[in-house]
Amino acid sequence: MTDPVIIDNLQYANWSEEIFRQMRDGNVTAVHATIAYHENFREMVAVIEQWNRWFEEFSDLIRFAGSGDDVRAAKAEGRTAILFGFQNPSPIEDDIGLVEICHRLGARFMQLSYNNQSLLATGWQEPEDPGVTRMGREVIKEMNRVGLVIDMSHSSERSTLEAIELSERPIAITHANPSSWRDTKRNKSDDVLRALGESDGVIGFSLYPNHLAGGSDCPLEDFCTMVARTAEMIGAEHLGIGSDLVQGQPDSVVEWMRAGRWTKAGGGGAVFPPMPSWFQDNRDFGNVANGLRAIGFNAEEVDGIMGQNWLDFFDKSFGPA
Amino acid sequence: MTDPVIIDNLQYANWSEEIFRQMRDGNVTAVHATIAYHENFREMVAVIEQWNRWFEEFSDLIRFAGSGDDVRAAKAEGRTAILFGFQNPSPIEDDIGLVEICHRLGARFMQLSYNNQSLLATGWQEPEDPGVTRMGREVIKEMNRVGLVIDMSHSSERSTLEAIELSERPIAITHANPSSWRDTKRNKSDDVLRALGESDGVIGFSLYPNHLAGGSDCPLEDFCTMVARTAEMIGAEHLGIGSDLVQGQPDSVVEWMRAGRWTKAGGGGAVFPPMPSWFQDNRDFGNVANGLRAIGFNAEEVDGIMGQNWLDFFDKSFGPA
Repeated sequence: MTDPVIIDNLQYANWSEEIFRQMRDGNVTAVHATIAYHENFREMVAVIEQWNRWFEEFSDLIRFAGSGDDVRAAKAEGRTAILFGFQNPSPIEDDIGLVEICHRLGARFMQLSYNNQSLLATGWQEPEDPGVTRMGREVIKEMNRVGLVIDMSHSSERSTLEAIELSERPIAITHANPSSWRDTKRNKSDDVLRALGESDGVIGFSLYPNHLAGGSDCPLEDFCTMVARTAEMIGAEHLGIGSDLVQGQPDSVVEWMRAGRWTKAGGGGAVFPPMPSWFQDNRDFGNVANGLRAIGFNAEEVDGIMGQNWLDFFDKSFGPA
Repeated sequence: MTDPVIIDNLQYANWSEEIFRQMRDGNVTAVHATIAYHENFREMVAVIEQWNRWFEEFSDLIRFAGSGDDVRAAKAEGRTAILFGFQNPSPIEDDIGLVEICHRLGARFMQLSYNNQSLLATGWQEPEDPGVTRMGREVIKEMNRVGLVIDMSHSSERSTLEAIELSERPIAITHANPSSWRDTKRNKSDDVLRALGESDGVIGFSLYPNHLAGGSDCPLEDFCTMVARTAEMIGAEHLGIGSDLVQGQPDSVVEWMRAGRWTKAGGGGAVFPPMPSWFQDNRDFGNVANGLRAIGFNAEEVDGIMGQNWLDFFDKSFGPA
C-alpha cells in the first residue's frame, strides 16, 4: 500500500513562495500550472524562464515534472511537482514543428482551443463549431507522436467529440464539470463525458464557481454527489481533480484571459468569483477527499480521484507513442 | 577493451541523406553540428525543428545526443549521434534565461563570440579585445550551472584566457589549431593552449584549410607532426578532432557566415577552399588515425584523439554542475 498522491491538474496563480508553501502544507504531490493563455512561442518561453528561476529559488518546495516518475520523485523528496500546460495552442503559432519543441521544453498538456476559434479547433464561446481543422488534424497526430496531451476543457462540443475520435491516445479534459449539473457550454455534455471515458481519457473536476451548480455557494455535498453521478456514468477511474484555482491574481487577469489581444472591447468587466468556503487554496484538498468518502466512495476510489488516476494517465501519456 | 569511438566536434554541412550515409560508412560515432551562426532564438529553434524532421526521416542513420550515454547508445545502435552547438551566442539574445532553455532544447556547446564582438566576448577579427563582458561573466556562471560548454574557437586571445580563468568547469576549443603552426589569429597561441590543458579542457584540431600550414595542400604528416607537438606541450588527453568540415554548401554560405546581418558590405568574396586530399569527408577519419599512428602515437592515444577524449569530456560537461 503506497501513500496516496494528491494531484491538481489545473491551477493558474500569481505564483509565490507563500503559495508554494501552501502546496507543501496541503501535501499536494503535483500541480499542472498553466503557462500560456494567449502567449506566442517566445512569450511562453519567457514564462518557462520565470519558472526556472522559481525552481532554483524554491528548490526545497517545488520541482519540474515531465513524467510520472518525476511526480513520484517529487513525492519522495517532499516537494510539489509542477507540470506545464497551455490553455491555447498559441505557443505553437502556425508551426507544427513547435509541438515537439514545446514538449522538449516541458509542456505536457495543450488545449486545442481556448474560448475562441483557434487554428486547430473551436472554443466554447463561438456561435459555430466547424470541428477540428486541417491543421488540427495534423497537430493531433504530432501531439500523439511526441506525448503532448490533448486537452479540450475550453473547446466546444463538436470539436471535442472529433478530437476524442481523431486522437489515437486518450485525451484529457483537465478542468470542467458535467453540463447536466451546471448548465454552461463551458461544461461538458454527457455525450462528451461518455466518449471520454470510453476512450480511457480523464476529466478533472473544476472547483471554479462559474462551473459549479450554485456558484461560490455550492455545498461540498452537492459537488461530491455530482462526482458520484459521473462515476456511475463513466467509471471512477476516469475522474480526477482540476480545480482551476486562481490565487492572488487581480481582476485585470481574468479580463486578459477573456480579451487577450483579439478584441479592443475588453473582457466584459469579468471578475474572479470567491471560491467555495470548503476549497480556498491548496490546503483544502482534504475537505474534498472527506466529502468523497462521505458520499460513499471507497478508499481506493478516493485515492484515484484525488491523484492516482492522473498519475496513471501521466505514465501512459507523456512519452513517445 | 571497448571498440573505439570516432567523434568530430565540429561540422556544418548542407545536411542530406548522402552525408548521413557517409557518416555511417566512415563509422563516425558522433558529430557536433553547428545550428547557429547568426540566428536569434526563434531562428535557431527553426533549425532544431529541421533537425527533428531529419531524426524522424533518417532514424536508421542518425539520432540526437545530449549526453555521453546518448553517444554510446548511438554506437550500440549503429547510428551517428548528432550534438547541437552554436558558433555565436546570438540564440540567447540579451536574455540569460535562454541559456537553460537552449540547454533543454539540446544545445551543448556555445561560442561566447563568433568573429566579431558579441554581448559576451570578443571575436578574433576585432582590432581590440576588451575581454569577457559584464553579461559574459554572468552567462559563464549560468553555462557552468546547466552544463552548456563554453567554446572559444573563434574568440580572441584575452577573451579566451579570461573565459578559461572565469569558468569553473573545463572549456572547449572545438575547432582550431596552434597559431605557432599556422599563423592566424583564428588559431590559438601557446599561452591559450597551455591554459586550456591546465584547466582540463580539450581542443579539437581543425582540418579547414585556412587553419592548416600549407592550406589545402597541407600533407597529412605535417598535420600529425603538429598534433604530436601539441601533445608534448599539453598532453594527448586534451586533444581531439573538430574538423570544421563543410559539405555541399555554396560559397554564398561562407559569405553569410562572415557578413551575417551586421554589414552591408558582404563577406569579402569569401569562398570555401578545397579540403586536403586525405580528408574529403566523413569517410576519411581512418586516414587521420593512420597518420597519428605513423607519427608515433600509441593505440590508446590515437583512440583518445579520434574520439574518446571528447566522450570523456561530454561525460563530465553536459550535466548540471
